[in-house]
Amino acid sequence: NVESAWGGPLALPPGTSGEKFAKFLAGVGDVCGKSEITLVSSQDQLKGGWYLEQSKVHDMHSIYDEDFFVASAVVTPSSVPQVQALVRLANEYEIPLWPISIGRNVGYGGAAPRVRGSVVVDMGKNMNKVLSVDEDSASCLLEPGVTYSELYDYLIEHNLHEKLWIDVPDLGGGSVVGNCLDRGVGYTPYGDHFMMHCGMEIVLPNGELYRTGMGAMPDPTQPGFDPDAPLHEQPPNKCWQLFNYGFGPYLDGIFTQSSLGIVTKMGMWLMPNPGGFQSYLVTVPNEEDLHPLVETIRPLRLQNILPNVPTIRYITLDAAVLGHKKQYVSYEGPITEEDKRAIEKKLQLGRWNFYGAVYGPPVIRDAMLSVVKEAFLKIPGAKFLLPEDMKENSVLHIRSKTLRGIPTYDELNWLDWEPNGVHLFFAPISKVSGDDAMKQYEVSKRRFEEAGMDFIGTFTVGMREMHHIVSVVFPRGNPKKRDRAVWLIRTLIDDCAKHGWGEYRTHIGLMDQIQGTYSFNDNIQRKLNETIKNAIDPKGILAPGKSGIWPSKYDKKQWVLDSKVEKKF
Amino acid sequence: NVESAWGGPLALPPGTSGEKFAKFLAGVGDVCGKSEITLVSSQDQLKGGWYLEQSKVHDMHSIYDEDFFVASAVVTPSSVPQVQALVRLANEYEIPLWPISIGRNVGYGGAAPRVRGSVVVDMGKNMNKVLSVDEDSASCLLEPGVTYSELYDYLIEHNLHEKLWIDVPDLGGGSVVGNCLDRGVGYTPYGDHFMMHCGMEIVLPNGELYRTGMGAMPDPTQPGFDPDAPLHEQPPNKCWQLFNYGFGPYLDGIFTQSSLGIVTKMGMWLMPNPGGFQSYLVTVPNEEDLHPLVETIRPLRLQNILPNVPTIRYITLDAAVLGHKKQYVSYEGPITEEDKRAIEKKLQLGRWNFYGAVYGPPVIRDAMLSVVKEAFLKIPGAKFLLPEDMKENSVLHIRSKTLRGIPTYDELNWLDWEPNGVHLFFAPISKVSGDDAMKQYEVSKRRFEEAGMDFIGTFTVGMREMHHIVSVVFPRGNPKKRDRAVWLIRTLIDDCAKHGWGEYRTHIGLMDQIQGTYSFNDNIQRKLNETIKNAIDPKGILAPGKSGIWPSKYDKKQWVLDSKVEKKF
Ligand SMILES: Cc1cc2nc3c(=O)[nH]c(=O)nc-3n(C[C@H](O)[C@H](O)[C@H](O)COP(=O)(O)OP(=O)(O)OC[C@H]3O[C@@H](n4cnc5c(N)ncnc54)[C@H](O)[C@@H]3O)c2cc1C
Ligand SMILES: Cc1cc2nc3c(=O)[nH]c(=O)nc-3n(C[C@H](O)[C@H](O)[C@H](O)COP(=O)(O)OP(=O)(O)OC[C@H]3O[C@@H](n4cnc5c(N)ncnc54)[C@H](O)[C@@H]3O)c2cc1C
Repeated sequence: NVESAWGGPLALPPGTSGEKFAKFLAGVGDVCGKSEITLVSSQDQLKGGWYLEQSKVHDMHSIYDEDFFVASAVVTPSSVPQVQALVRLANEYEIPLWPISIGRNVGYGGAAPRVRGSVVVDMGKNMNKVLSVDEDSASCLLEPGVTYSELYDYLIEHNLHEKLWIDVPDLGGGSVVGNCLDRGVGYTPYGDHFMMHCGMEIVLPNGELYRTGMGAMPDPTQPGFDPDAPLHEQPPNKCWQLFNYGFGPYLDGIFTQSSLGIVTKMGMWLMPNPGGFQSYLVTVPNEEDLHPLVETIRPLRLQNILPNVPTIRYITLDAAVLGHKKQYVSYEGPITEEDKRAIEKKLQLGRWNFYGAVYGPPVIRDAMLSVVKEAFLKIPGAKFLLPEDMKENSVLHIRSKTLRGIPTYDELNWLDWEPNGVHLFFAPISKVSGDDAMKQYEVSKRRFEEAGMDFIGTFTVGMREMHHIVSVVFPRGNPKKRDRAVWLIRTLIDDCAKHGWGEYRTHIGLMDQIQGTYSFNDNIQRKLNETIKNAIDPKGILAPGKSGIWPSKYDKKQWVLDSKVEKKF
Repeated sequence: NVESAWGGPLALPPGTSGEKFAKFLAGVGDVCGKSEITLVSSQDQLKGGWYLEQSKVHDMHSIYDEDFFVASAVVTPSSVPQVQALVRLANEYEIPLWPISIGRNVGYGGAAPRVRGSVVVDMGKNMNKVLSVDEDSASCLLEPGVTYSELYDYLIEHNLHEKLWIDVPDLGGGSVVGNCLDRGVGYTPYGDHFMMHCGMEIVLPNGELYRTGMGAMPDPTQPGFDPDAPLHEQPPNKCWQLFNYGFGPYLDGIFTQSSLGIVTKMGMWLMPNPGGFQSYLVTVPNEEDLHPLVETIRPLRLQNILPNVPTIRYITLDAAVLGHKKQYVSYEGPITEEDKRAIEKKLQLGRWNFYGAVYGPPVIRDAMLSVVKEAFLKIPGAKFLLPEDMKENSVLHIRSKTLRGIPTYDELNWLDWEPNGVHLFFAPISKVSGDDAMKQYEVSKRRFEEAGMDFIGTFTVGMREMHHIVSVVFPRGNPKKRDRAVWLIRTLIDDCAKHGWGEYRTHIGLMDQIQGTYSFNDNIQRKLNETIKNAIDPKGILAPGKSGIWPSKYDKKQWVLDSKVEKKF
């Protein structure tokens, strides 16, 4: 409750007096209801929280002090008009807003805003309906608060889960909308979430409502059509979830990893049951086997014999899913070669473990599987395993669910590799080439060793590239180890830039640095984005600093975070 | 030659004196060479031209008077710095530019600019190299002037054509880049050209050079890397043609159907030989069979048992490919039901003819083909035919090439349905549903009958929607028939809007009307686009009016074309 808590927030929005902020919040209370505002007025509110009970007010996995990336307040609107009114108020009072859907963007900043004192707009709490699922076109329309698990449960409830499959990331607790807006990935043939979205409804920074693609075309044939009804109640165009591009410039992409709008609805394509699937695991014994593994994968992936987003996981990742570090070894610092071998033996795994699946009716699956098996078994020491070959408590059994689009939570265990673990994602793009993958792995691993930490990583294989997802795990509440993790990732970003490798996504604290590495023509990319930003959001109220893009109102000298890090260990 | 021809152009750019224009052209001459400028100073330059010898100065298939959409001059730059200098000059003199790659956008305005007197920038004439083809990643990097046929020939020359397949539209003479920028479609599994592009290099309206996606990341590991080299000579990032999204807002879409940049290079994905393919034809006898045909298609397409962009062609379209109207009937006006039956018999075709293909090694093809066959043969009267069942001179033999990505020119024959034919495309999006397709066809056909013209159309089947491509054919040089065609298409656009159907692409003369139908929230889509346009191109020099988006400098009252048409027949 605003008034009772009023002693002011821990962090006011920049350039905003307590009085102005109170007036703004009073206005927000009138719009959304006072009970929908949480003021962040005490350090106690920054304690605790984990993936399932995520903090909405700061980054639970903070890479600076706990209250560095912290909200002044959280608002939970209940309707599109409320979001519109909120945005208009933010313009009036020049208050930065930071929209989230669920706020489980763990490893990338969680729910925390880039600008201290921003008001977090929690879109998911009250706007969490599956608005429609269309069996015929295998598509759905969602509000921001729908998680993967909830969408899956909805399909079960409506007896559609055999007919329509969803695509899930490693964990089921994220927002289908939020994940797509951050261009997240899953592992079925529908793993490229942005590619598989279709249609967005967006509140623009001026408060106007826009529907992209075919959504911009009113549809008088739809039941309940009334041109005088409020915009958000107008029934969508029948083709909104069917055709992405609409007419004229195709704008959807500018609303991803961006600060140009608050998404209130999004269409997603679902995968019609392909006729079944079969997951499998290929293990290879040695570090260097990554090379032939990737070389084997490339042509198969391009040919769609690997029709989905399979993953090449390093042994420590699987080990971390199945146990805590202290269950394997009793020392600190990187696990030795010898102990890795022992873990591999214990877990029936190789140094690299490739989790794939084929989809389709049995005839087609069998045909594909025999090609897959033959190709991979050419690698000396490779083993080909089916779920029935593995113990029940194995990563293959978990991945089998993920590869079928069934949400799970097992991969959360990574984070507990060391007690009280938190983490950061380092996520460079790699060519699907043995040379490149090996080099990127070696560059990364060397720095992990330098930092005295375990390399924990996976390559997720897209159509023609791999997202190399590396988890930098460190214990909460240990500033020394935290700073070491930050040194590691900042150093890796620069290392990779020297190799021409760029990251696909990152933590709010690293966005400036990474945008900086996309530096062709004196950072024309950032400048172009800022031109668009200033035009659409002249007061810079929406997610300032997101993806390293700063509205003109923000002085970069003051706001851009220093990417130089001293090695203090 | 500028000076010798100087008596001034037929059409000066708006608000530009002859003197100012001459100064501008002199500047352009200094940049590009005088011989690279063609002044349009005489009506004679507006005569003739057909698909293969396309006019670059006006719309050969004009829907208003011949000199309505006409350029003042055509410039053919030879390098990226020339394009940059040209754009800077255009800003200085406030001259509208209209970039084209090849200018064979026949049915959509050809090479003609939307604003009379614009300077056409013919990107294709001198910038026409296949810059690279990478076999490993099945991708290529192209300059704007590369046609489908040229890309195909390049693959043959380099002995890559069996390994890498391209995707082609009906005709091979278009620009791979230009077609993608207009969001054109082809017919293999790679038929969605925008989806299959990867990376663009763009001269922005301020003359700055931008590379999208991973192209924004310099790559010191590439041979010849030199940070001090001119930007356009910097070797591309190794992942530029591999990963579309890069980091931060994904901007590529805003450069399609747009006026925000001149594209100087583009990456495209090629299809690795899937292991062979098999084309087939399903014919159905009656008008109403479109319904079960589409109902059969939907689930198969979603399941990827129809893995490409197949087409449902109306009998008149195939008849037009195989002969002139007068070879079938001797009267004017729509072909009668009786004569359609005779044509069907003669050509071994049905009322609707579905051209599909399966891809893959024989085992997989056979499995898929048997499913396909069984499904379609449930439609009473349906016939399933393979190429060997048809005469050599049949559409199936032509489509078999197209479905394999081999460029052809046979479909040009449509245009000669009536002597001296020209045409306009009407291209609404339809649900993949029997009801919707039937209704959209009937709405269209009724208006064709009212106009006394033959309905010639095809549904091209995307993943979850169909592009209904209708060809409005009319004879050149007959203002009465031309006006009738314009009445027909303008009326159809309005009819369709009433049904909630929107067009995916259109002729320059119809862009205002169609953008107008995407009217959700008082045309917020157009307004948002105009906000972006004014920010990126404050002087409005690039393709003003494209897609119905007008820079603030242009007074819409004066420039928007009236979509009201009187029925004068
Ligand atoms: C162990 C582990 C495994 C993981 N595996 C994966 C994985 O496989 N794939 C993957 O992609 N991620 C993965 N993640 C990262 C993350 O958990 C997911 O991406 C998650 O879906 C993101 O959080 P969210 O869905 O709650 O999104 P949110 O945090 O709600 O949103 C993400 C961001 O998108 C923007 N945004 C969200 N909603 C809106 C809106 N309505 N309007 C405008 N902007 C908005 C905001 O900038 C926000 O910060 C993993 C994390 C962990 C800890
Ligand atoms: C019989 C027939 C069949 C056809 N079938 C098909 C089909 O199957 N599929 C299909 O898609 N089309 C089809 N078309 C339409 C057309 O012929 C093709 O789309 C053709 O590829 C477009 O012309 P172009 O490639 O020369 O592009 P251009 O005319 O060069 O470019 C098209 C537009 O894109 C923009 N543009 C081009 N280059 C640039 C650049 N470098 N920078 C910025 N903007 C640029 C311009 O606005 C330009 O007007 C058909 C036409 C006919 C007559």
